[in-house]
This record gives sequence, C-alpha cells and structure tokens, in this order.
Amino acid sequence: MPVAPALDTIRDGRKRRGAKKRALVLARAMHIASTHGFEGLTIGRLAADLGISKGNIAVLFPGKERLQLDTLDAAVTRFVANVVARALTAPTPLARLVALCDGWFRFVNRRELPGGCLLYATSNEYRARPGAMRDRAKHHWKAWYTVLATNIRAAQREGQLRADVPVSQLAFELMAHQAGANVAALLGERRLFQVARNATRDSIAAACPTGGTSQIRATRGAARR
Amino acid sequence: MPVAPALDTIRDGRKRRGAKKRALVLARAMHIASTHGFEGLTIGRLAADLGISKGNIAVLFPGKERLQLDTLDAAVTRFVANVVARALTAPTPLARLVALCDGWFRFVNRRELPGGCLLYATSNEYRARPGAMRDRAKHHWKAWYTVLATNIRAAQREGQLRADVPVSQLAFELMAHQAGANVAALLGERRLFQVARNATRDSIAAACPTGGTSQIRATRGAARR
Repeated sequence: MPVAPALDTIRDGRKRRGAKKRALVLARAMHIASTHGFEGLTIGRLAADLGISKGNIAVLFPGKERLQLDTLDAAVTRFVANVVARALTAPTPLARLVALCDGWFRFVNRRELPGGCLLYATSNEYRARPGAMRDRAKHHWKAWYTVLATNIRAAQREGQLRADVPVSQLAFELMAHQAGANVAALLGERRLFQVARNATRDSIAAACPTGGTSQIRATRGAARR
Repeated sequence: MPVAPALDTIRDGRKRRGAKKRALVLARAMHIASTHGFEGLTIGRLAADLGISKGNIAVLFPGKERLQLDTLDAAVTRFVANVVARALTAPTPLARLVALCDGWFRFVNRRELPGGCLLYATSNEYRARPGAMRDRAKHHWKAWYTVLATNIRAAQREGQLRADVPVSQLAFELMAHQAGANVAALLGERRLFQVARNATRDSIAAACPTGGTSQIRATRGAARR
C-alpha cells in the first residue's frame, strides 16, 4: 500500500476539481445571463455571486466573450441532453416532432433558469448586434429549426403529415409559440404558457391528413413512456 | 412694429427648441436601445453619439431609468400613430384585425430601427428582471394584446370569426408570429419574415366561418385604401 498517492492520481484529482469548478461557474453564469442578459454577465458579477476571485474565473474563462460563448454552449448542451436526445428515440418522425415540442415546454416549465429558454433570449439580445455571440446564437437557433424541419419533412415522406404543408411555415410556427410562451409566462401571463401548448398541438394537428388530434395523442403517449 | 420680440415669443421659441432637442435625443435613444438593448442605453453613449454634453441630456432626462422609460414610450407612441390609429379606422372588426397585423409587418419591414420592433425586444430583455421597465414593457405588451383580442371578440360577435375560436389563442398566435419574425429576420432568415406573414394570414383565415381567405383578401384591400 503506497504511503503517498501516485502522480497520476494527483493529476486526476486536479482535473476533476477543475471540471467541477468549471461546471459550478457555468451554472451560476447561466443563471445570471437568464435574468440580466449576456451583456449583464460580467466576470465581476460572477465572482461576487460565487464568492471567489475574478482571477480564479479568468483562469477558466479568459475574457468576457469566452465566458459568454461557453455559457450559451453549456445551456444548449443541457437542453440537448434533457430534451433532444430523448425525443429522437421516439419511433416515428411525427412522434419525434411532438416529443421535441412537448419536451421544450416541460423543460422550460421546470424553471431551472429564472428567465426560461436561453436560446430565444440570446437570439433576441444579439439579433441586431454583429459579433461572435450573434453568430453562435444564430448557429444554435438554426440547429433547433433544422431538427424540427427535418422531422416535419420525414413525417411528410411517411404520410404522417400532409405533403402540402409548407415545412418552413410549420417549423416557424412551432418556434414562434415557444418564443412567445417564454416571454408571456415571465411577464405574468402564466395561462398563455398553456395557450401556447394548445396552439402547438393545433398547428401539428392541422397538418395531419385525417384524425390529426387522436394520432398526436397516441404519439404523445408513446413519447412519454 | 416692435423692435424686440415680445416675452411670449421668446418663451415659445425656447419651448420649441426644447421639444426639438428632446425629440432628437429620443430618436437616437431608440436607435441605441434597438441595437444594444435598454441596458445598453446609457446617457454617456447617447451624449457621445449626438456630440452633446451629458449634462445637457441629464437636464431633459434626469437619470437612466427616466431616459429608458421615455424612450420606450416614444417608440410605442410612434407605432400607435403609424399603425394602430390608422388600422382602427377600418370599417369592421375583422378588417381592423387584419390591418393591425399587416400594419405591424409593414412598419417593422421599413426598418426605421435596426433591431425591428422595440416592444418585443424590451419584453424579452426585462421578462425576468423586476422593476419599472418590466412594468412598462408589460403594460405596452398587454395593451397590444388587448387591442388584438378586443377586435377578435368583436369579429366573433358580428359573425366574421367563428365563435368557438379561443380568443386568447388567436391573439397569442398573432403576437408569437410577430415576435418570431422580428428575431428570425434579423438573424439573417429574411424569408421567414414572409413565412410569418403567411402564418398570420392562415391563422386568421382558419378562424373564419367559410371562404376565410377571400374574405380576408377583401378586408385587406379595404384596409390599404
């Protein structure tokens, strides 16, 4: 039995502690960005909130923009792990589409972040401000649009959605309901969150060939199991 | 003929110049808030942009919050004068509803402000940040929701829209399309601006009893004249 830990064990311990500290900082950063926007996410505010030095944070995130980009990426990674990955295991394209939308509403409704969905908030904050944050927000916005549109198109090929429904219009509507719900609920119009879910259900049902609603109910049950 | 202007004339001249300067400052303030958000609207940035002293601006707007509130109000006043007042002269509730929505798209499409509609931007910026700006954003958000909902309800009473359509859902959808269009277009997805207009047209048409689309086309013609 060794009296001192081997060098590798020390290195592993440091790595683990580094990753743990990084995750802690990112969690708080998401919280701040969710309330104060990414422009309000400063290393100074983060240090004060966590009770650690600015220098310590600067080692992990050299510069405000690095911190902003990594925070946005971390929020998206959390959403993908919690919602997208699971929804994509559903058996049919329509079931996947319904699970993606249901998943968004459930995820945001859990209120892990006080300002709801960071993707829509960030897209709005940087919509007219060129730079790395706008490019990254646009990248993630487009990825979410693409996963919705891809499943709409696949559902059309399999006859689960009508072929004459414009893919871009249905994908846009679903995202618009989410963005609208995110703001309305936080402005105090809680009931509009449920209204948005109904609007999403109706938009998908209206795109179904026949008996849309019952078909969606069936896929919803499948997605939840 | 008096050799010097009367005291009243001097006072009137001062008032006019004051109002003119105020309007100039507010126009620039809207521009800054539209790009950098209301938290990015500082008296310092405004003074630098306009080439006047911070003290001069502080006389007109004592404090950052006063400046923010007055800028938001000025943007809403401009929208009401350009869109709402005109739309409400249309002869029927359905024609008014269509003119309100068409008016929003036309107004935002003129790109008087680089960041599009300030109402949706501000609602998003302050959605989770309590204070006077959140209250004011919510007030204006609610006023726009109410004018849409009121005309939907009136159109239902007159048989122009189906009575079984949930008022809150249709009003929410129309606002969601606008909020979605505002962000998508500025992220570079220009074609989604037209997609949003189509989605709005289809939402209203789907709420019409019969021959919805042609009825809307007729009211659109009337609203434009």
